[in-house]
Amino acid sequence: MRKKMFKNIRIVLVNPSHPGNIGAAARAMKTMGVERLYLVNPERFPDIEAYYRASRADDVVNNAVVTSSLEEALKGSALVLGTSARDREMPQPMLNPRQAAEKVISEYGGDVEIAMVFGCEKYGLSNEDLLRCHYHIKIPSVDNYSSLNLAAAVQVITYELRMAQLSQLVAPQDVKKNNKQLSTVDELEGLYKHIEEAMIAVGFFDPQKPRRMMSRIRQIFNRAQLDKDDVDLLRGMMKSTARSGHE
Amino acid sequence: MRKKMFKNIRIVLVNPSHPGNIGAAARAMKTMGVERLYLVNPERFPDIEAYYRASRADDVVNNAVVTSSLEEALKGSALVLGTSARDREMPQPMLNPRQAAEKVISEYGGDVEIAMVFGCEKYGLSNEDLLRCHYHIKIPSVDNYSSLNLAAAVQVITYELRMAQLSQLVAPQDVKKNNKQLSTVDELEGLYKHIEEAMIAVGFFDPQKPRRMMSRIRQIFNRAQLDKDDVDLLRGMMKSTARSGHE
Repeated sequence: MRKKMFKNIRIVLVNPSHPGNIGAAARAMKTMGVERLYLVNPERFPDIEAYYRASRADDVVNNAVVTSSLEEALKGSALVLGTSARDREMPQPMLNPRQAAEKVISEYGGDVEIAMVFGCEKYGLSNEDLLRCHYHIKIPSVDNYSSLNLAAAVQVITYELRMAQLSQLVAPQDVKKNNKQLSTVDELEGLYKHIEEAMIAVGFFDPQKPRRMMSRIRQIFNRAQLDKDDVDLLRGMMKSTARSGHE
Repeated sequence: MRKKMFKNIRIVLVNPSHPGNIGAAARAMKTMGVERLYLVNPERFPDIEAYYRASRADDVVNNAVVTSSLEEALKGSALVLGTSARDREMPQPMLNPRQAAEKVISEYGGDVEIAMVFGCEKYGLSNEDLLRCHYHIKIPSVDNYSSLNLAAAVQVITYELRMAQLSQLVAPQDVKKNNKQLSTVDELEGLYKHIEEAMIAVGFFDPQKPRRMMSRIRQIFNRAQLDKDDVDLLRGMMKSTARSGHE
């Protein structure tokens, strides 16, 4: 059994002003297997609205660690990444969410305590907070409307963590089997012959002036990747068609 | 100046039950440059809660197109991708959000009308709705908690579109052109209706005992990605078939 949860990753929300966003962030995290939530000086918490928006991620809300400073929330973490919508004049390296997730998963694996930090809804992280981060993450929104909802930002970042984790986990034997039983070439040839006969019977196809009909039909059904049931259905249709044409 | 907005992509929410999610979805879209929102039978709309959660994306909410059926919302689109959290026994190809975005951007460029469809909060898309989709998208959540918030799912999908677009903007200018003129959803619906009529005429299909014939037919031709000439050919075949059956 491979690891599925991110036991070494914490999500830190600094001064969240709206409890609904705390609940929505908890839900976003949990869908991607991140369950450790830290709240630095939340404006209203605990609050019924957090539970309302958390859906069934109320355990993440209940287990949230509330601290009175970012420093306290980061205690024990060895790698800190902070999100920022604005470009700042700061020397920290800037990553997009994918680069950040790849770095976290490939370079740090499951052994290092990692914190991913999000600022408050209105102002984001302060310059002082950002200075505590080893990397800045910028979600690549459009220039004229860059303000993601706080929980939506958490969703994007944790989604990228999950994608990076899965790309590490997926070995050949895990690849989902396509259990459709594809039809064989000879079954397809039988179908094409049947279509041709039926179309002659109903007067649509004239073998003396074939034009491109049958090659088009082949192209269509090659693209469709027919399985055996599909071929049976189509041949049934052609059988009735041919019979009707001969009547 | 390179293109930044996705003018050919619409986001379709089917039966959204909570207006707050409509607003949050609008905001999520706008941060990633997707601005065309369609709502199929929203439970409460317009509603002040949608505006409250939309933040400054109220223009996306105001311009939303409300329809009474998914079919209507898909009109004119040539490629339809539907999100699904559950695995269904359906042969439509399954993509993760990244694969879906790469397909949309690299194969279809900016020329083809594309719809990305999301189901309602409680149940997702119905099987019938999913049959209208050429591809299914599954966001890779953890097994025991797969329920992303609706707007969070929209955020992930549109984020991947934006990432794929940005990777193209910096890449060499050899965008693969797909010069087939794909048929639109309404043209396909016309074809399906025609097939059904023809199969009734030749006595193969009994509308009283429909079983799964028409849904199989839809699956086959969705996979085949028919262009306008393909549809013309198949409709010609069905016309002769129906005439022959009625004789």
